[in-house]
Amino acid sequence: MTEKSSYDTYREDVAGRANVEDTPELVRYYRDLERFDAGALWTVANKIEPWEPKSESVPTLWRYQELRDHVLRSVALVTPEKAGRRVIYLNNPGRHDVSAAVGWLYSGLQVMHPGECASTHRHSASALRFIMEGRGAYTIVDGHKMTLGANDFVLTPNGTWHEHGVDEGGTPCIWQDGLDIPFVNAMEANFYEVHPDLHQQVAYPIDDATHTWGASALLPQGQAWSKPYSPLFKYEWEPTYDALRRLAKVSKGSEFDGILMHYTNPVTGGPVMPTIGASMQLLRPGEQTKAHRHTGSYLYQVAKGEGYSVINGRRFDWRERDIFCVPSWAWHEHVNTQASEDACLFCFSDLPVMKALGLYREEGLKTNGGRQAPAPN
Amino acid sequence: MTEKSSYDTYREDVAGRANVEDTPELVRYYRDLERFDAGALWTVANKIEPWEPKSESVPTLWRYQELRDHVLRSVALVTPEKAGRRVIYLNNPGRHDVSAAVGWLYSGLQVMHPGECASTHRHSASALRFIMEGRGAYTIVDGHKMTLGANDFVLTPNGTWHEHGVDEGGTPCIWQDGLDIPFVNAMEANFYEVHPDLHQQVAYPIDDATHTWGASALLPQGQAWSKPYSPLFKYEWEPTYDALRRLAKVSKGSEFDGILMHYTNPVTGGPVMPTIGASMQLLRPGEQTKAHRHTGSYLYQVAKGEGYSVINGRRFDWRERDIFCVPSWAWHEHVNTQASEDACLFCFSDLPVMKALGLYREEGLKTNGGRQAPAPN
Amino acid sequence: MTEKSSYDTYREDVAGRANVEDTPELVRYYRDLERFDAGALWTVANKIEPWEPKSESVPTLWRYQELRDHVLRSVALVTPEKAGRRVIYLNNPGRHDVSAAVGWLYSGLQVMHPGECASTHRHSASALRFIMEGRGAYTIVDGHKMTLGANDFVLTPNGTWHEHGVDEGGTPCIWQDGLDIPFVNAMEANFYEVHPDLHQQVAYPIDDATHTWGASALLPQGQAWSKPYSPLFKYEWEPTYDALRRLAKVSKGSEFDGILMHYTNPVTGGPVMPTIGASMQLLRPGEQTKAHRHTGSYLYQVAKGEGYSVINGRRFDWRERDIFCVPSWAWHEHVNTQASEDACLFCFSDLPVMKALGLYREEGLKTNGGRQAPAPN
Amino acid sequence: MTEKSSYDTYREDVAGRANVEDTPELVRYYRDLERFDAGALWTVANKIEPWEPKSESVPTLWRYQELRDHVLRSVALVTPEKAGRRVIYLNNPGRHDVSAAVGWLYSGLQVMHPGECASTHRHSASALRFIMEGRGAYTIVDGHKMTLGANDFVLTPNGTWHEHGVDEGGTPCIWQDGLDIPFVNAMEANFYEVHPDLHQQVAYPIDDATHTWGASALLPQGQAWSKPYSPLFKYEWEPTYDALRRLAKVSKGSEFDGILMHYTNPVTGGPVMPTIGASMQLLRPGEQTKAHRHTGSYLYQVAKGEGYSVINGRRFDWRERDIFCVPSWAWHEHVNTQASEDACLFCFSDLPVMKALGLYREEGLKTNGGRQAPAPN
Repeated sequence: MTEKSSYDTYREDVAGRANVEDTPELVRYYRDLERFDAGALWTVANKIEPWEPKSESVPTLWRYQELRDHVLRSVALVTPEKAGRRVIYLNNPGRHDVSAAVGWLYSGLQVMHPGECASTHRHSASALRFIMEGRGAYTIVDGHKMTLGANDFVLTPNGTWHEHGVDEGGTPCIWQDGLDIPFVNAMEANFYEVHPDLHQQVAYPIDDATHTWGASALLPQGQAWSKPYSPLFKYEWEPTYDALRRLAKVSKGSEFDGILMHYTNPVTGGPVMPTIGASMQLLRPGEQTKAHRHTGSYLYQVAKGEGYSVINGRRFDWRERDIFCVPSWAWHEHVNTQASEDACLFCFSDLPVMKALGLYREEGLKTNGGRQAPAPN
Repeated sequence: MTEKSSYDTYREDVAGRANVEDTPELVRYYRDLERFDAGALWTVANKIEPWEPKSESVPTLWRYQELRDHVLRSVALVTPEKAGRRVIYLNNPGRHDVSAAVGWLYSGLQVMHPGECASTHRHSASALRFIMEGRGAYTIVDGHKMTLGANDFVLTPNGTWHEHGVDEGGTPCIWQDGLDIPFVNAMEANFYEVHPDLHQQVAYPIDDATHTWGASALLPQGQAWSKPYSPLFKYEWEPTYDALRRLAKVSKGSEFDGILMHYTNPVTGGPVMPTIGASMQLLRPGEQTKAHRHTGSYLYQVAKGEGYSVINGRRFDWRERDIFCVPSWAWHEHVNTQASEDACLFCFSDLPVMKALGLYREEGLKTNGGRQAPAPN
Repeated sequence: MTEKSSYDTYREDVAGRANVEDTPELVRYYRDLERFDAGALWTVANKIEPWEPKSESVPTLWRYQELRDHVLRSVALVTPEKAGRRVIYLNNPGRHDVSAAVGWLYSGLQVMHPGECASTHRHSASALRFIMEGRGAYTIVDGHKMTLGANDFVLTPNGTWHEHGVDEGGTPCIWQDGLDIPFVNAMEANFYEVHPDLHQQVAYPIDDATHTWGASALLPQGQAWSKPYSPLFKYEWEPTYDALRRLAKVSKGSEFDGILMHYTNPVTGGPVMPTIGASMQLLRPGEQTKAHRHTGSYLYQVAKGEGYSVINGRRFDWRERDIFCVPSWAWHEHVNTQASEDACLFCFSDLPVMKALGLYREEGLKTNGGRQAPAPN
Repeated sequence: MTEKSSYDTYREDVAGRANVEDTPELVRYYRDLERFDAGALWTVANKIEPWEPKSESVPTLWRYQELRDHVLRSVALVTPEKAGRRVIYLNNPGRHDVSAAVGWLYSGLQVMHPGECASTHRHSASALRFIMEGRGAYTIVDGHKMTLGANDFVLTPNGTWHEHGVDEGGTPCIWQDGLDIPFVNAMEANFYEVHPDLHQQVAYPIDDATHTWGASALLPQGQAWSKPYSPLFKYEWEPTYDALRRLAKVSKGSEFDGILMHYTNPVTGGPVMPTIGASMQLLRPGEQTKAHRHTGSYLYQVAKGEGYSVINGRRFDWRERDIFCVPSWAWHEHVNTQASEDACLFCFSDLPVMKALGLYREEGLKTNGGRQAPAPN
């Protein structure tokens, strides 16, 4: 390590904050401390105890139109066997070191052709997939096989054996993967295992989890479930969209989020997995929400419609399948620019972590009628 | 109180059990104790510590065919205003003192004509209603109005203001009421209050609870719910029956109960109310379950089909709308006698109490292939 | 059953209440219903839906001075082998049918001589013992042996093998037993089993539960405990009294209860058992509490000092070791008549049941400065 | 960003792992992706999905003997007003960027002279202090003032106003601070606030939290507590050490940890704070534990005695007040080298996070009798 030349970079002239100017004697002292793997708190205190969070992640939108070709191009370039998985991951400009789309969340676009199938593995990272296009995709989780269509969403939780594929009779499929890989790595708790047979057996009737756990407010007798994630591995689009429209009939929703529903574990009413939560929200024709900000990292995919979001004062126009992120404590508001169609935003986040650990906080924008004044786009 | 002549009625000649014969000296002693509001435990120990439960309730079936006329007859005999409610309650032959259908559960059949409406009240007893016939019935719970059809089931939990009625455009309606009145009375915790205005305002869109909380594994954002009962007050028949049939596709179900699902509170995955649980079960064509017994008191209504149940060795044939009870620790098995139709049994019980207090126990019949040998009917 | 002559006993002339006068036609109708194990709700509605609870139990005080001789007399009259246990039970004048001291709680005074030991059994009823006098008493619960002194309190929860005895070197011991036998019988869930060897082995070091679980806010690693009752079977008097005095230094306590602490399960912070809770309260010299009432049934033993309680307007003077009950929804206030000594009241109750099932309710007396005007004693 | 020259650094020739060699065409493809804030997963997959965790933190021991002088030196160099707090923080050689002692945990040694007092602030980071030397230290948390002695441990949870000081009549005091600052910063959820008055009022009797919540298995009536951290802010040394010795009488303890107890929230039995847990463990004279490893980051302080620990094969000798860390998934075993004295290790960690999020895993060393073969020290 090269010696630092100044230690008083973070001084603040505010009562209760560190404000110590470098002197030759102090600098000598700081260098003495370094020899003992130590330092003087007041040289870093104002840095490590900020007044409020300032995310390293940058608000970013990934246009599907731009990425799709590159995703498809990978089919010719690598085999699933060599690549493990053919995935183009999203790299937040502020988070290159950890391959994160936002905060500690990883996301990528995976493509698979009919008849292809990735090998079975498991890891401590939790995962979900959100289907973007194609017919015939399926996922197998611990022996439960699920068929998947556009806007369906499937879990492959921490520790479950899982594999993905596309039926011979299907079409090329693209889906979004979402994982907490960066978080689990940061917690230094990631384990990875390839299935000894490379593939797992389907041990239950197709879509049995949906038929067993997917009823509204009805749980099957004699099916004990105490794992920390939802036994309902698949959340289908049709009943989800239907639920949003029914809710919209009787509720004005939130001024910040319109009509928003959280996917839940039906056994507990809690989040689908301990480290990743997910939601779908509906913006009514012409709806423009007010700005708020909260802690946690959020990655959206446009499931339906078009419009724009303003994030920390910058406008991001979006269309179906575009993906964008809202970093922690970033102001954000959403607009459905369509005159007569709903817009729907799928979102996954680390909200369950923030809630479980007491780190969630939110506030609405008090000025300008609750709306940010975006810079010209 | 008249003096008892003998105190050794409950003697058992078994090690570890009380076995004290009356002597003149002991009888004098017992009478001395009575003067001090006391007694000798060994005179009652074997009675109050039985080897296993022996229910006071008697297995009983109430035929709808027999009761229906009497229920309708009440319309001419009393007004809702005078009667409070026009209800014929079911009186278990073993439980006359507490007006219970089985154990500590009350049940009755209520009739209401179009345009009629009972006044609003609330009580510490928890209630549910299961619709048997008619069109146009509704219930209002704390300002939430719900429309009701046959085999729908609605909650009016402990402490909620509630009223029932039938729309002007409807037909005469009959439903089953289920309450824990005897239990709450036994716990000496029942309070009753008539609404100061006799009726409550409808404060939300019709069926808003269903649209808000009735989606599968999706919960609305920003709707905090911490009450000890389900916010989903109504459980409709159609999705329930559909759920049973879907479960039957992928599960063999229980050898004792066929395909059985518990109605749940979607916010917690737990029972619909702390003191009363409910379930719907489907018996496939020709299905004959094995006998088991468990603690808790259970009241069934036949929602669909016909067949019979054997309860403590006695056969009870049933048809749609018949009601029958299974007392605590009574052996029971069910048979769908139809060759090509499902049979469905609605059931409510005190199972949540038994589970919460650690008093639930069950066992299967080990002999005769798991089937009771019923006495000739 | 003899035919009832009148059915309109419970009429009330209040809107929303049943108010139907008998007519010959109605009486014929009622008798028709009885043949079908049914009845008309409006004939009993006002009885089974009371405006507020009216306990069947009678406020009662049992003077130790009066009972002690009779308890000791039992030693000469019966052997533990014949009697099972030598216990004089407390019989609330309002609850003779179920051998209850108050509500659904049983209590008795047990005596044992040095060298005596009752056989091991288990049952679904939960039990506790509160030591009144003597040296050398012990209890063994599932292989854990505990030594017991005056004012110590020990659990023998639902389903645990337990036996009691007095060491050869001890003195005659008397203790109070408290059980939920009437409640578990009412729930028709009581099972009883005698240990196959009549006695169990001591499988752990003496008082190991105390040394393992009895530290303040410290739990041992690697000792999983998921049973629904406290692993800390014994609660000793000395640290309890010390805790009350420390709390009294920094808290004014409750105007209704003085300084009151609930015994808890250290693993959960919840009640010691799901069906029975216990507390110890301290009344400072001269302290006179205000009257309140709440649901639930409460049985007190005076652990220290003297004074009186006013229960539903009647004064009960008490001294050390006296036992008295407060039935559900009965007004009660306590007075320590000593000028310079604390008084301490041990209490056990069904409060955990009332809380778990949403049946707990309380209110303070608004009139007369919060104090009842007792009738002259 | 400079262009990367090679992208196939992480190739593994194992079925199910990425194994794609760079080609000119692929490198062009990778560079195309970078322009869209994207990348090819297979270039980083083996890096971000490791077979098992490899901590960035380095096993490190900080000798008190070496640090103490530097800590005291700070008194002459800076005032509390200028420095905010006079703290020398521990900087793990592998974690310089985030000022962490291990993993995402911060720690430092703070010194304060009699009559000094730091200003009141609050932050989203949770904190604890463990007293090392001196008399007269105190902490005030949300108006509750606590006196502190050596080996006492005090909480200042997320969001609580807190300040520290030393009474005029005391001596210079040194304590260890422990916080989750790096973690809360990583989660982008840290807020900081200086108290408007710079100091808070003492609003309760001294040590009231200890007298209110510090009893064993007894909780005060009427003191509702639903915050996510323990209301017992202080854990004193004497009862802790006593508890360990009592547990040692009846338990062999763990082969990996000897006699270890977790400090708990008495209201829930859970950890003291959602993000930081703490424990004290006792190693009996001559005790040598077996090696195990688990996820999570752990920082120890030697509260009593001397000995050594072997961490990932390296021996660290320790004496009273030394501090050392065990990074995630590092093998570790402890030895008390004293012939007749106990050794005690205080430890704080992120164990509650690992448990709450399903990321905890552990295993014992199977070889060499469960002991690592350390390199010569």
